[in-house]
Amino acid sequence: MKTGDLTTPALIADSKTLETNIATMASKRPGRTLRPHVKAFKSTALAKKLVEAGHESFCCATIRELEGMVKAGLGNDLLLANETLDATRIGELLTQEDCRITVAVDSLETIEAAAFAGVKEVLIDVNVGLQRCGCSPEEAGFLSEKAKTSGLQVRGVMGYEGHLMHDPDVHRRTEKTQESMELLISAHEAVGGEVISGGGTGTWECNQSVTELQAGSYVLMDGDYSKLDLPFKEGLLLLTTVISTSKSGYAVLDGGLKALSVDSGNPKLLGEGEVMFCSDEHTTITNGSWSVGQRVGLRPSHIDPTISKHESLFLVEEIEESLETELLETLEIDLRGW
Amino acid sequence: MKTGDLTTPALIADSKTLETNIATMASKRPGRTLRPHVKAFKSTALAKKLVEAGHESFCCATIRELEGMVKAGLGNDLLLANETLDATRIGELLTQEDCRITVAVDSLETIEAAAFAGVKEVLIDVNVGLQRCGCSPEEAGFLSEKAKTSGLQVRGVMGYEGHLMHDPDVHRRTEKTQESMELLISAHEAVGGEVISGGGTGTWECNQSVTELQAGSYVLMDGDYSKLDLPFKEGLLLLTTVISTSKSGYAVLDGGLKALSVDSGNPKLLGEGEVMFCSDEHTTITNGSWSVGQRVGLRPSHIDPTISKHESLFLVEEIEESLETELLETLEIDLRGW
Repeated sequence: MKTGDLTTPALIADSKTLETNIATMASKRPGRTLRPHVKAFKSTALAKKLVEAGHESFCCATIRELEGMVKAGLGNDLLLANETLDATRIGELLTQEDCRITVAVDSLETIEAAAFAGVKEVLIDVNVGLQRCGCSPEEAGFLSEKAKTSGLQVRGVMGYEGHLMHDPDVHRRTEKTQESMELLISAHEAVGGEVISGGGTGTWECNQSVTELQAGSYVLMDGDYSKLDLPFKEGLLLLTTVISTSKSGYAVLDGGLKALSVDSGNPKLLGEGEVMFCSDEHTTITNGSWSVGQRVGLRPSHIDPTISKHESLFLVEEIEESLETELLETLEIDLRGW
Repeated sequence: MKTGDLTTPALIADSKTLETNIATMASKRPGRTLRPHVKAFKSTALAKKLVEAGHESFCCATIRELEGMVKAGLGNDLLLANETLDATRIGELLTQEDCRITVAVDSLETIEAAAFAGVKEVLIDVNVGLQRCGCSPEEAGFLSEKAKTSGLQVRGVMGYEGHLMHDPDVHRRTEKTQESMELLISAHEAVGGEVISGGGTGTWECNQSVTELQAGSYVLMDGDYSKLDLPFKEGLLLLTTVISTSKSGYAVLDGGLKALSVDSGNPKLLGEGEVMFCSDEHTTITNGSWSVGQRVGLRPSHIDPTISKHESLFLVEEIEESLETELLETLEIDLRGW
């Protein structure tokens, strides 16, 4: 079966790029010094490739992801790198299955929910500058004590410098990451534990502080991260078909907002031409020459919310401009959605 | 069961608003003068409510939607208001099931694909100004002849003035819609047939030319359409939970880009405050006061690619600011995806 046989829109990935990306990261962050984030690829089949590369602990962003990972036998050491009040679902998983799940907490409420539900281990989530979850560094010690009093084991801290991930200036990114991680280290001094978890694809090299890096996008990469000076290459493509052409110089593809996300900008065309706009089921492209029925590839600007729309990821040996490649494997995106 | 019992993020809809929207449209566009577009709500259970309101013909944007509608017993008169080269899947549906499917064509290639696959009926899709599918009005007669020569029955024309849907000035929208529809009428003169299909929620009143209106968004409405002077009210809400708060004055919700689409802008908060930004699994909000565990509702800016991410739509009698409402019914979003 070849890519030409696929019903479009379909998500394809370049296995050579994927392997190189995985190997590059593993050479710097081997084994448990990387905690790959499944939110970026949403597939336990792909997570198993990371296990083969030596990583056996994973980050999840949602309880659905935890449930899917445990079901797939990948519950060896999972971190819910996110807050939840719905911890009873995690308590049930821990009771029913042989797994280890650590949960991020950043408030008395999330500590109470975790303890009540039978969660055993937590990390204190610290705000290191991103306006999202995490307690202030000054509160970390207090919350850690509260967690311990509630019967929870505190494995350490986490802090995600997401606001720095896409800074195109590597020197500034490095400097600001160090400043940001100083907050996490100060929190860790108050909390203790063996884990300092944080970082991501954008700070994979400049974050020297964490004991485990929470990167996920590096595996398949996207347009947004490819603007940086990273050694990881874009490996994901939305395969589409030209369904209409106009004498005015544009063509229309059969994939749009329901098959890819444009929150970080329009996708890029593989080959000549450029994207004019995406609508629900279409992408209109221009400045090129296309014929009805031709296959055209779109590089998504942001992979996480793109992959989460799909049921399958089709692995090919190498994505070429002809888009006529042998299919190697079909990976189920079993963690799709959120 | 109440909304408070739902696992978040969850999509809820106000059944009173939904009923009023459906009745308002049906009073102006009864029965077959409306061909509701299922792309906007992706649920055959909701389509059945439109059948109860008197509509029995539907628009689909994808073959998956056609397949789902036929499977649900709603294949009485379906229009694929879109081009496809993959018509064999439609041919198979027509062979296996008792249904009627008309397919839009705008080129020799799409006509050939339809005829080869055993499609029986087509509409000539005419470009009326939106840079997407559709032949030029001048080509419509030629393509109609070609379709007839290929053994296809030509039921008429369609043309979608999507570029005018969101014009906030009703006079300009009306005037430009009339100009746009003159192109469709001229094409219809060359093509013939009983069907002139087009229009949408934004031009529901100012498009007097079509024999059937292709509106779908009016049922649940969204932030983008609510900026216009339409009688339809927003009825959809993403229910989320506050999972973290900061002394800096913001709070974090447990739904983001994977649960709603921001292609038409950020969602709006129900009640006080405003949205700062959405990330994959979170929305950060500010200028209000929230506590951890509290339920908060987000009005999506664009419903189509939001609904298509969800498995279920929870109908409540009326969405109130307290967000503590009895659940009436759970509708499966069986046509989710594309």
